Amino acid sequence: MVDKLKVAVLGATGLVGQRFIQLLCNHPWFEINYIAASQASIGKRYKDSVTWLVETPLPENIGNLTIQSAEPEAIPKNIDIVFSALPSNVAEKIELSLAKRGFTVVSNSSPLRLEPDIPLINPEVNWDHLKLIKVQKKKRKWKGVIIKNPNCTTAILTLSLKPLLEEFGLRKIIVTTLQAVSGAGLRGVPSILIIDNIIPFIKGEEEKVENESMKILGKLENDSVKPASISISAMTTRVPVIDGHLEVVHVELLKEHSVNVIADTLKMFKSKPQELSLPTAPQKPIIVRFEEDRPQPRLDRLEGKGMSIVVGRISKAAKIGGKWIKYIVLGHNTIRGAAGSAILVAELYVKLEGMI
Amino acid sequence: MVDKLKVAVLGATGLVGQRFIQLLCNHPWFEINYIAASQASIGKRYKDSVTWLVETPLPENIGNLTIQSAEPEAIPKNIDIVFSALPSNVAEKIELSLAKRGFTVVSNSSPLRLEPDIPLINPEVNWDHLKLIKVQKKKRKWKGVIIKNPNCTTAILTLSLKPLLEEFGLRKIIVTTLQAVSGAGLRGVPSILIIDNIIPFIKGEEEKVENESMKILGKLENDSVKPASISISAMTTRVPVIDGHLEVVHVELLKEHSVNVIADTLKMFKSKPQELSLPTAPQKPIIVRFEEDRPQPRLDRLEGKGMSIVVGRISKAAKIGGKWIKYIVLGHNTIRGAAGSAILVAELYVKLEGMI
Amino acid sequence: MVDKLKVAVLGATGLVGQRFIQLLCNHPWFEINYIAASQASIGKRYKDSVTWLVETPLPENIGNLTIQSAEPEAIPKNIDIVFSALPSNVAEKIELSLAKRGFTVVSNSSPLRLEPDIPLINPEVNWDHLKLIKVQKKKRKWKGVIIKNPNCTTAILTLSLKPLLEEFGLRKIIVTTLQAVSGAGLRGVPSILIIDNIIPFIKGEEEKVENESMKILGKLENDSVKPASISISAMTTRVPVIDGHLEVVHVELLKEHSVNVIADTLKMFKSKPQELSLPTAPQKPIIVRFEEDRPQPRLDRLEGKGMSIVVGRISKAAKIGGKWIKYIVLGHNTIRGAAGSAILVAELYVKLEGMI
Amino acid sequence: MVDKLKVAVLGATGLVGQRFIQLLCNHPWFEINYIAASQASIGKRYKDSVTWLVETPLPENIGNLTIQSAEPEAIPKNIDIVFSALPSNVAEKIELSLAKRGFTVVSNSSPLRLEPDIPLINPEVNWDHLKLIKVQKKKRKWKGVIIKNPNCTTAILTLSLKPLLEEFGLRKIIVTTLQAVSGAGLRGVPSILIIDNIIPFIKGEEEKVENESMKILGKLENDSVKPASISISAMTTRVPVIDGHLEVVHVELLKEHSVNVIADTLKMFKSKPQELSLPTAPQKPIIVRFEEDRPQPRLDRLEGKGMSIVVGRISKAAKIGGKWIKYIVLGHNTIRGAAGSAILVAELYVKLEGMI
Repeated sequence: MVDKLKVAVLGATGLVGQRFIQLLCNHPWFEINYIAASQASIGKRYKDSVTWLVETPLPENIGNLTIQSAEPEAIPKNIDIVFSALPSNVAEKIELSLAKRGFTVVSNSSPLRLEPDIPLINPEVNWDHLKLIKVQKKKRKWKGVIIKNPNCTTAILTLSLKPLLEEFGLRKIIVTTLQAVSGAGLRGVPSILIIDNIIPFIKGEEEKVENESMKILGKLENDSVKPASISISAMTTRVPVIDGHLEVVHVELLKEHSVNVIADTLKMFKSKPQELSLPTAPQKPIIVRFEEDRPQPRLDRLEGKGMSIVVGRISKAAKIGGKWIKYIVLGHNTIRGAAGSAILVAELYVKLEGMI
Repeated sequence: MVDKLKVAVLGATGLVGQRFIQLLCNHPWFEINYIAASQASIGKRYKDSVTWLVETPLPENIGNLTIQSAEPEAIPKNIDIVFSALPSNVAEKIELSLAKRGFTVVSNSSPLRLEPDIPLINPEVNWDHLKLIKVQKKKRKWKGVIIKNPNCTTAILTLSLKPLLEEFGLRKIIVTTLQAVSGAGLRGVPSILIIDNIIPFIKGEEEKVENESMKILGKLENDSVKPASISISAMTTRVPVIDGHLEVVHVELLKEHSVNVIADTLKMFKSKPQELSLPTAPQKPIIVRFEEDRPQPRLDRLEGKGMSIVVGRISKAAKIGGKWIKYIVLGHNTIRGAAGSAILVAELYVKLEGMI
Repeated sequence: MVDKLKVAVLGATGLVGQRFIQLLCNHPWFEINYIAASQASIGKRYKDSVTWLVETPLPENIGNLTIQSAEPEAIPKNIDIVFSALPSNVAEKIELSLAKRGFTVVSNSSPLRLEPDIPLINPEVNWDHLKLIKVQKKKRKWKGVIIKNPNCTTAILTLSLKPLLEEFGLRKIIVTTLQAVSGAGLRGVPSILIIDNIIPFIKGEEEKVENESMKILGKLENDSVKPASISISAMTTRVPVIDGHLEVVHVELLKEHSVNVIADTLKMFKSKPQELSLPTAPQKPIIVRFEEDRPQPRLDRLEGKGMSIVVGRISKAAKIGGKWIKYIVLGHNTIRGAAGSAILVAELYVKLEGMI
Repeated sequence: MVDKLKVAVLGATGLVGQRFIQLLCNHPWFEINYIAASQASIGKRYKDSVTWLVETPLPENIGNLTIQSAEPEAIPKNIDIVFSALPSNVAEKIELSLAKRGFTVVSNSSPLRLEPDIPLINPEVNWDHLKLIKVQKKKRKWKGVIIKNPNCTTAILTLSLKPLLEEFGLRKIIVTTLQAVSGAGLRGVPSILIIDNIIPFIKGEEEKVENESMKILGKLENDSVKPASISISAMTTRVPVIDGHLEVVHVELLKEHSVNVIADTLKMFKSKPQELSLPTAPQKPIIVRFEEDRPQPRLDRLEGKGMSIVVGRISKAAKIGGKWIKYIVLGHNTIRGAAGSAILVAELYVKLEGMI
């Protein structure tokens, strides 16, 4: 490869933006050429504007970059990929305008995720949905393209469900989540509300999990995604944990299978990103632990550099019916659940498009 | 009432023991006459032996009591009720011996809870199971009696389920818990395992919830309890919260009902302890909150002096079927879930027996 | 007493404002007649506008009060005392205007605390500084009056220092604080910054402690306060604790004294508020603990209903000189350190003025 | 180098033992040949016996090692260095016996640290004290040798003090610590004591800080260490932080200096380990931060792979005298403060002895 592809990061000072910076700053294919944040930060050096909360130090060269405008007209034409970590309230307008102007937008923000012609990609789960791009281009007449990665909780959940769906079929899913505070952004959860406490509600989260999962686990047929015929109910809570969403899952399979077979199916799972050896693809997307007390957020969230999910406590919920199983799944919410996923989507796209 | 009944507290230095002390020290019917703890503490003053962790100060007169032996032969004959907060590994032997010697034992410890002739009482839920005492006396030929109160998580869960069972009928229950560290006792959860973390496992807890609930929600028929024909699956986790177990519950009812009807049914629920105006009975056993982000452990655990449970976020889980509802319930694990329940059981017993 | 005095609470929805409401709602002398908060809340019921975070429930009657404007012209003339928990950036202007209009303002906000003619009162420590009111009225030609209570950390520190100053004389004070998150207000400390972490800085706090202490511990001479001839250095940090500031204090006395004498002096300390039996005055302003591991925020912050401070670990710091002692002091930051103090100031004032 | 030196780790399952394993498992000079733990673990594989709490995964090859006895007679003769992370109550006897048998013992345990002929080494601070070995061999007639590294808090403190002592001279030091729970070992701090709380006492810690610092900062003269003529007073507390001790330091210098000069002196400090480019030596032993709110445990503890300390908030404490300064220092307690220090001591020793 002669040159790296040039990328922009919009919303670079937020928690997800910081993860984008961290994961991109030594990336073999991509180089950060443009970082943008809100009005108040424009013109400042990144390091003077960000409250850097990632556990590895901010690289000096990135720290010295000047923050630019996120306005579509300001983005240089030579940017190959625009990563968006923009807040929901401004994301849609900017991303639509960018696509019109010909940019390839890979976005972690929530608007437009459920649009029929916009691929919502969790790379190992539904990489083939990227084919929606053709539909999108045709319908929208854009030179550019918008690709979305899922909500954090959904990304972790659907990765654990995919092999079960393929091998055994799924009927009902009931999931309760224990989500880290980083998922709410820097100022999302005041400390006085979470020390010695649980907040049993996260605005909009349950709808996202229920709706996005249907699309991601759906099948691409005749240029559109047919939602999976599964039913999901989610209850989401916020817990005093820095990083790592833990999800307690009950699943009704189409028929009964042994715990061993289920565990094997999960841990053997690989998909296109592994096959293509994409730089950000974890060797093992799903790590299965057999200890009685794992996964744990603090100890397991960085497995596979934060891109693997960890499944544990797989067992049968036989009392409620032989086809019911239960397990716990953990994933790093700002890596597998956000910036890492988006970067893996971008890798998949540029590889499949032959840009690299 | 001329004289208070004399009570003993066994296992008085543990966290549940401390709650017994707190709740009994100004009790209108009971007075603490004997406190016992493990060998190493015998002969010391209570205040020199306990790591007092209750948020109200240790009463001076109790603090000065001398700790006695928990051996059955050491308990004075004039003790009317023996409250047991003994650790599981020693509880069974001591309690059986006490009952043989003629004592009335009200016990929070887990052994024997599932014995067919031993009443397992969550006062508002199955006060009528106290009638098993007759069976017990007949079968065991004891002069005394053993009555159990349930596991903490079970006590909270079954209280929320009882009105639903009665009014609507229940089929399946799927519950995920977020449990406070006080439930594990003083040394149960090392801080290095729980700061910025979740432990997704509590030894024996899920079996207790699944099994005890069946007995508590069961019907007394022909001198034995016929387990409820409900199926339960529980997943239990430990979270960084001091007091208050939060439980996320999915329930399949026998037929569909509106959220309003369900909420009304829960909040109107009263039972024998309220009818008898027992001293420890909360005026409202179930408090229903309609805010989107309640109940929360730190803010709601002391409702009804820790004896009420708080239910919130009641809604339909329509995607998985019209008969499914979901809600969150919170209860104080060492009050409603342990010492408070036991004391309410004792109050019920002495009232029904005419001892007061 | 025929009628209660009518009070207003400005800034009623903040954390200190909530403490005012809690402490005033059953007050024997005062009744809440007016509550004000920021523009966005005006016209709403209090309970619909506040994120109530106090551990006792919001009284129904207060919850139904309508929030009014904090603009001086809006405050009814018949209000006897205006309690101000206004944010610093708006407090000064409003309070000055209120005093001009004839109101008695007792304020917890920081502006004006160091003005020579404005009494800065920690009731047990310098109640006699209330005499500055005469100077104030003369100089400012106000019909009303402004009285301030100190910064939270300062209130706790100076109460512990007062008996030492009087009995032994003080030279140097070096204090390191571990402060609760409630001191920063509802949104002051994002949870992602404080879980598994310490923030070793609190804006403006060290200056407040150093400067306000000099005034509070100073002597009233010839109508002005002569600052104490003591020198103080403070380092302040924020820790993951809900309520309760803990302060580690090294003190150089004027001459050497035994630990026993020092402990006795602290625990025997009483002052005017105790002498007058003011409703909010704790029986013992300073509680001395002799256990090696006390005071602790969670266990000791509510001593004296949050109005006592708790001193422990008193010992000689002999290695750095015979006159040096060290101890730890804990106080409830929003009660003794804010709303409770202000109410006690008001009680003192109305009693001394014969208004009650 | 043909072969790596063979090392043993005693007390390998504790938190410090785990850090030894983590830091040694890819060490360029040392290879782990023997791991020992308490009786109950002997014969088990390491991975089956340890509660691995380090944030990086346990290497497979180490996990499969069998745990051996820590009894001196069991240690193979070909072990070049024995690292001891033994609990205090058994360390002394075992270490003395090992030295008699000819082993080189580098020990993190507290007994014997103050023995005049036993070097107590904080590598950058007093590497030259290693010369005490000659005295030790002569006096004890051992074939082997015992070298100690300091208490965690002391290691961090004295590294920050050394350049100040050398450049400016020191008179008085007053230090208040906020220490992480990992310093107390796996079961040292029950979670119920530390959530929403501070424990203002750590058994024996203050004496260790005060006494060990004198020896470490002392001068080697005529075969013995002459303690530094400095006076120290320490107050130590436990806070809800996983790793990283934060220390708030007031220092009286011999004469006045500017903050700039002090900051420069700290950040330029290098010593023998840097000169010799020892593998575990951080490039910058002391990192100085100029932001107003640093260092913070969670964000800064891994600087220099946990071997650097981070100093911030340097300022003059002018109010208590022109020669007084204050600053905050943070260090990783189980790396710089324990296992990392010990390994650096061993590197220094084998380099200076020409063993490598």
